[in-house]
Amino acid sequence: MTDTLISHLCQLLGADAVTRADGIDARYRTEFFSSQPVASQPCGLVRPRSTEELSSILKLCHGHRRAIVVQGGMTGLSGGALPGDGELIVSLERLRGIEEIDTLAGTMTVLAATPLQEAQEAAAAQGFLLAIDLGARGSCHVAGNVATNAGGNRVVRYGMARQQVLGLEVVLADGTVIRSLNKMLKNNAGFDLKHLFIGSEGTLGVISRVVFKLEPLPSCVQTALCAVPSYGDVVALLRHAQRTLSGRLSAFEVMWSNFYDLVTRRLPGQRTPLPHGSPFYVLLDLQGSDAALDAALFEKMLEQAMEEGLVTDAVIAASDKETQSLWKMRDAPGEFPVVWPVVVSFDISLPIGAIGPYAEALHARLDSQFPGCEYVTFGHIGDSNLHVCVHVPGTTAETFPEHAIKDCLYDLLRDYGGSVSAEHGIGTHKREYLPYCRTPEEIALMRTLKQALDPRGILNPGRVLPDAS
Amino acid sequence: MTDTLISHLCQLLGADAVTRADGIDARYRTEFFSSQPVASQPCGLVRPRSTEELSSILKLCHGHRRAIVVQGGMTGLSGGALPGDGELIVSLERLRGIEEIDTLAGTMTVLAATPLQEAQEAAAAQGFLLAIDLGARGSCHVAGNVATNAGGNRVVRYGMARQQVLGLEVVLADGTVIRSLNKMLKNNAGFDLKHLFIGSEGTLGVISRVVFKLEPLPSCVQTALCAVPSYGDVVALLRHAQRTLSGRLSAFEVMWSNFYDLVTRRLPGQRTPLPHGSPFYVLLDLQGSDAALDAALFEKMLEQAMEEGLVTDAVIAASDKETQSLWKMRDAPGEFPVVWPVVVSFDISLPIGAIGPYAEALHARLDSQFPGCEYVTFGHIGDSNLHVCVHVPGTTAETFPEHAIKDCLYDLLRDYGGSVSAEHGIGTHKREYLPYCRTPEEIALMRTLKQALDPRGILNPGRVLPDAS
Repeated sequence: MTDTLISHLCQLLGADAVTRADGIDARYRTEFFSSQPVASQPCGLVRPRSTEELSSILKLCHGHRRAIVVQGGMTGLSGGALPGDGELIVSLERLRGIEEIDTLAGTMTVLAATPLQEAQEAAAAQGFLLAIDLGARGSCHVAGNVATNAGGNRVVRYGMARQQVLGLEVVLADGTVIRSLNKMLKNNAGFDLKHLFIGSEGTLGVISRVVFKLEPLPSCVQTALCAVPSYGDVVALLRHAQRTLSGRLSAFEVMWSNFYDLVTRRLPGQRTPLPHGSPFYVLLDLQGSDAALDAALFEKMLEQAMEEGLVTDAVIAASDKETQSLWKMRDAPGEFPVVWPVVVSFDISLPIGAIGPYAEALHARLDSQFPGCEYVTFGHIGDSNLHVCVHVPGTTAETFPEHAIKDCLYDLLRDYGGSVSAEHGIGTHKREYLPYCRTPEEIALMRTLKQALDPRGILNPGRVLPDAS
Repeated sequence: MTDTLISHLCQLLGADAVTRADGIDARYRTEFFSSQPVASQPCGLVRPRSTEELSSILKLCHGHRRAIVVQGGMTGLSGGALPGDGELIVSLERLRGIEEIDTLAGTMTVLAATPLQEAQEAAAAQGFLLAIDLGARGSCHVAGNVATNAGGNRVVRYGMARQQVLGLEVVLADGTVIRSLNKMLKNNAGFDLKHLFIGSEGTLGVISRVVFKLEPLPSCVQTALCAVPSYGDVVALLRHAQRTLSGRLSAFEVMWSNFYDLVTRRLPGQRTPLPHGSPFYVLLDLQGSDAALDAALFEKMLEQAMEEGLVTDAVIAASDKETQSLWKMRDAPGEFPVVWPVVVSFDISLPIGAIGPYAEALHARLDSQFPGCEYVTFGHIGDSNLHVCVHVPGTTAETFPEHAIKDCLYDLLRDYGGSVSAEHGIGTHKREYLPYCRTPEEIALMRTLKQALDPRGILNPGRVLPDAS
């Protein structure tokens, strides 16, 4: 059967831009951490070469009431970019490149599918920092970072992706192009439309260009790993470090002892920079501009923390190699499959003071509900973000009680006033849990916005919002 | 004639909460910088004591299709809070108080009508900084700061009001309460609804509670005034200071020589800290935590700037008194009425590199179009924000060519890609100029949002959006 939409697209853009259903490469149907493409059957793939082509595609789909799924670097972790049955895949991969770095304005204008690392390196070459940073930097695309409001390791200093965005070009469901490429740090002329699209995971419009704010590039870094005796001391250390380093604390990563033990005892190639036995380990960074003055302040900060009993032991990285070695430990979750063949990972947030008590209650609940299970708790505690990974020894992909573990964790989260997604977003994976952390009125307002901007429901349908009950 | 809406309100809330048209005090009809109340005739005034009462008022007005105007501290500069004919004034002044400071989470939950300074002082008492700061701090209310996305003097470091907000409670046009009092720094669970309301000047909902993020409180400050030879050097100094002070540059205020001359030669009680004759004067602050280390870095930064020729002369404040004296000069615009009986003031933004060329072109155009006129140019250049004040000697309030000056300035602004409001907002005063800096598609999308959230047009009608053509 010939799909008339595909035929129209071929006429409109040329056959070179369009791939029929049977010719779609597996990479357009495979999630980042998965080896298997999804089973669903998209109706085709289209790869626009310009905003104008993207606009004409959406206009056509709007006219035909046909659903699309937007794709960038395919590094998302919530399933939002995987095609559903019958959906047209719109891959932005040809919209790539840095259009301008305005060193006077301190801004950078970038096409949607530019890899984050390419943008970071171009900014650095001009003496600026593009402050968004995350592990997938080599593969993820800037528009995906913005559409999902990416977090990462530097949020404690620079905020989320949202905070780095000054302007956007967005194509609406009906093909209307909103060209809002603002380069000003302050602009209160009417509603600030970009915030509608940032973090809405492609459900309200398709981002085609981004204007980023650039930060001054730090030139030196101080890194330490600290042993901390209690969660209360973790929070006290955070506040002490923020106050003392006054805006230059650039990472505050907390590892519960379960994380430190797993990584240093069971993963290959990891050092043990501090003795085992401390309830918490904190990795912190000062990024600054004057190595000598910064080192003096950093050491003073740690000495005070030790005097006050917030830190019982600490190691300061004396070289780039030592810094990398400390960070290698924090970045170890990518290697968990070595010891845990099946695992479920969480990306939740809670008010900072509630994270410690929540984790303690969660550990007890997991132990009782899934005897013998293994888990680690760690995260960007300075940003109120906790990661949890859970494994049940002896289970396989088929027998792993993933759904029961999710229910256990999210149920408890609700009692503590937390959010089911700190940084990865909702996509399809967490849709059913959205009501655990947003009120019916909030979700109704989200639907009102969706209806206003995409009345025919063609943009990433079935993502973010739960099914109407 | 009895107004049935007013009668209903009295029944609903008691007579104590409602004031009839003829009893409304002049302060509910008078703008901050004006001595005269507006001539318009509001239908009444209501002052809810709780979110529930606010909700019931809006529900009633929605049912009756009656327009309201929301009022806070009445310190706005764009006319948005002045009542129009027949509008019901909803003053939030009874919704006042600090509900919680969560020192672990680093957050503060505040009722709408809490004066900014009261909130700042409560945060400081707990060792935290509420980073929003502006001249009207003693009178303005936090919900007004948020509804207008207030700027101020510290934006170069901390961003606009938007950036300090983690959560909101908002009442929609139909009375629905959106309770979105998030305390997490990261929360990607669905659309981030608060950004709809921040900066939309009360046209999409009424803010009843705010959760602010708190920053570490700086404990010491370094302040300098620099003479700078060209606009190019101003921008180079900005980048140099940001890079060297690495996140701690807390103010970067630029005064063109016209400003410096007016303030130091014609206003009473002002010192002349640097000789006249420099094209630009820059006032900058480092706020930090270690007076000795900070002073060393600050001096090093200035020495380098002088070596590179970015700064030709500088004075560093040696005491709190000297710091205050330097800032008194920057804060002098409040005293301009002493020398200029009539004046029109602007609050525009441009990409940072374009500000110098724009100001030069503007000076020439003003000189030619309004011979003998006087003006000053100054602003938060680190935030891309330029202020301009224009006076025409010999004119009175009746003969002052205000509209012609606006046209002159905004016409030129359009050529340079600027915005008609950096921080004060659009209100009623700048409505007709919104199309100078937003595209028809952007304005159409704003109308779509307004229609979706306030289909009966009862919230602050005639503000922000221009009349449909």
